[in-house]
Amino acid sequence: MSTLINRQLLLKTRPDARVGREHFSLVETPVPELAPGEIVVRVLYLSMDPTNRVWMSDIPQYLPPVAIGEVMRALGIGRVVASRSPDFAEGDLVQGLVGWQDYMVATAEQAAQFLTLPASPGLPLPTLLGACGMSGLTAYYGLTEIAPVQPGETLVVSAAAGSVGSIAGQIGKIHGARVVGIAGGADKCRYLTETLGFDAAVDYKADDFKQQLKAATPDGVHVNFENVGGDVMRAVLSRMVIGGRVALCGVIANYNNTRPTDDVSVLISKRLTMRGFLILDYRKSREAVEQLGAWLLAGKLKAEETVADGLENAPEVLNRLFDGSHRGKLVLRVDPQA
Amino acid sequence: MSTLINRQLLLKTRPDARVGREHFSLVETPVPELAPGEIVVRVLYLSMDPTNRVWMSDIPQYLPPVAIGEVMRALGIGRVVASRSPDFAEGDLVQGLVGWQDYMVATAEQAAQFLTLPASPGLPLPTLLGACGMSGLTAYYGLTEIAPVQPGETLVVSAAAGSVGSIAGQIGKIHGARVVGIAGGADKCRYLTETLGFDAAVDYKADDFKQQLKAATPDGVHVNFENVGGDVMRAVLSRMVIGGRVALCGVIANYNNTRPTDDVSVLISKRLTMRGFLILDYRKSREAVEQLGAWLLAGKLKAEETVADGLENAPEVLNRLFDGSHRGKLVLRVDPQA
Repeated sequence: MSTLINRQLLLKTRPDARVGREHFSLVETPVPELAPGEIVVRVLYLSMDPTNRVWMSDIPQYLPPVAIGEVMRALGIGRVVASRSPDFAEGDLVQGLVGWQDYMVATAEQAAQFLTLPASPGLPLPTLLGACGMSGLTAYYGLTEIAPVQPGETLVVSAAAGSVGSIAGQIGKIHGARVVGIAGGADKCRYLTETLGFDAAVDYKADDFKQQLKAATPDGVHVNFENVGGDVMRAVLSRMVIGGRVALCGVIANYNNTRPTDDVSVLISKRLTMRGFLILDYRKSREAVEQLGAWLLAGKLKAEETVADGLENAPEVLNRLFDGSHRGKLVLRVDPQA
Repeated sequence: MSTLINRQLLLKTRPDARVGREHFSLVETPVPELAPGEIVVRVLYLSMDPTNRVWMSDIPQYLPPVAIGEVMRALGIGRVVASRSPDFAEGDLVQGLVGWQDYMVATAEQAAQFLTLPASPGLPLPTLLGACGMSGLTAYYGLTEIAPVQPGETLVVSAAAGSVGSIAGQIGKIHGARVVGIAGGADKCRYLTETLGFDAAVDYKADDFKQQLKAATPDGVHVNFENVGGDVMRAVLSRMVIGGRVALCGVIANYNNTRPTDDVSVLISKRLTMRGFLILDYRKSREAVEQLGAWLLAGKLKAEETVADGLENAPEVLNRLFDGSHRGKLVLRVDPQA
């Protein structure tokens, strides 16, 4: 064990806007001898999420920001390669906050937070981080607990070709809603309607975005599953019916922006309910994971992942969430053999 | 009748920021002969409300904006001085959208929207526009239907010395909550704690506003009855507990501002529910009016009004809502004999 070399990305400075390699130090340290209760996890895949960007900023948030000099926090899947814990054996597949590094040396307390996955999960590992993981759970709870959508209602999903949005839209269809997705570019829009079965797709990069959105929502919008915020959200809210509901999942337009320009006035004029939520509050649920898995295996839900490679590329890969150059769940393969 | 001269304030140009006399034409026209079904109402008092400012702007809103050349729309109380309607008699006291004018000539359709008040209402007319009118109803429904507050919870009310806020805070006390008011200046803050019985008051104009707010909410904030928006709301939201609720009643900080800078991110990190509402949806309720009246007569609720004079002063008087130089309900006395 002592010969393993661990590459780690430590937060060096806090980005103001886009993330770059210059905000991190790449260090190499030998994996230390384990204390009782500790395990070593070989990181296989990292989940690339907008929340990673939030964790880099020293602003109030639901977890403490990553401290300067700390390993960048991130969710991922790994395999136990050494264990001094009675709860984990070599070879176990685990999911948890493994961080931007090749190996995580987890204390007993950290390991207790891991979710042990079945040895043969039946789905590809990136899907377990995506449609059948946090992304899928987020979509599922957003449309059941936070802003349930009813048959015949119009649901608008932003960042609809992304990991959460693509599942949210498909769940909306399963629930019998008319589903309109917002995405960037003709290719993604076609993907939404032709591959995922959305009723309509609107290109937020198009000059006539607002006209397209209006045409796609002739009865107004009953439920907005919102991932973007900013100008995209402003346009959707302007189309909402009186008494409409917003499941506020993310506002990626604000995360790289020190002075957001949301305007909550429309919540009053349209008597809207906007409810923010975090999947943290729901992640223990078996029922939802089983439902998502069943839909996936039955072909009712289509999952897609964009897989990038190389731990050292993590900062640039994360930016793809904000420039939209990915589709479905964005994951980073850390172990080339994975 | 034909000798009555009606002074009217017609919207001339749309203000970008503060309202001024220059945005209106003051015209004098004789009150015309009535057609069948019409009535003439002598306007006694006008209610000065933030929504008046919204109605001047050509933006999406819950009623059409006032058109250029139209009488400025406003709620008020008046007395019927001539009637060709079977539903109204000379001397009747009515409440409705009478507008910025001395006399309203109401068509049968407009008159049907009026609320007829008892001949001896038992409360001063300004109170009927305030604590026992739209303002009181707004506070009442905000804390019962929109964001009910429970005994022992902390309620923060902004613009707490204003017409809605002062009633909301007192209703919070009746419901058993710890009530913290936000107002501008030491006098208003003292008024909240010493006269209205709030548990604490915080001065948003003070340099240490955020520290004051923190000290006044040691257990966090469970419910925010929000009237202001902007930086004041930002500070309150940062103090909310996980799962807190916001009754979004008004965002006066945004109404004179073409580029609001709200940030809804905090709704996610704190899993907040923000619900906008308009008293329009509730105004038919007898139950609430009776409850408010009973509290007022029993001395459980204290009402205060700031009365300004002179129809011609309406634009400047309206600004007092935004600079905070009033307390309680702001009304304009149009008839010097009222």
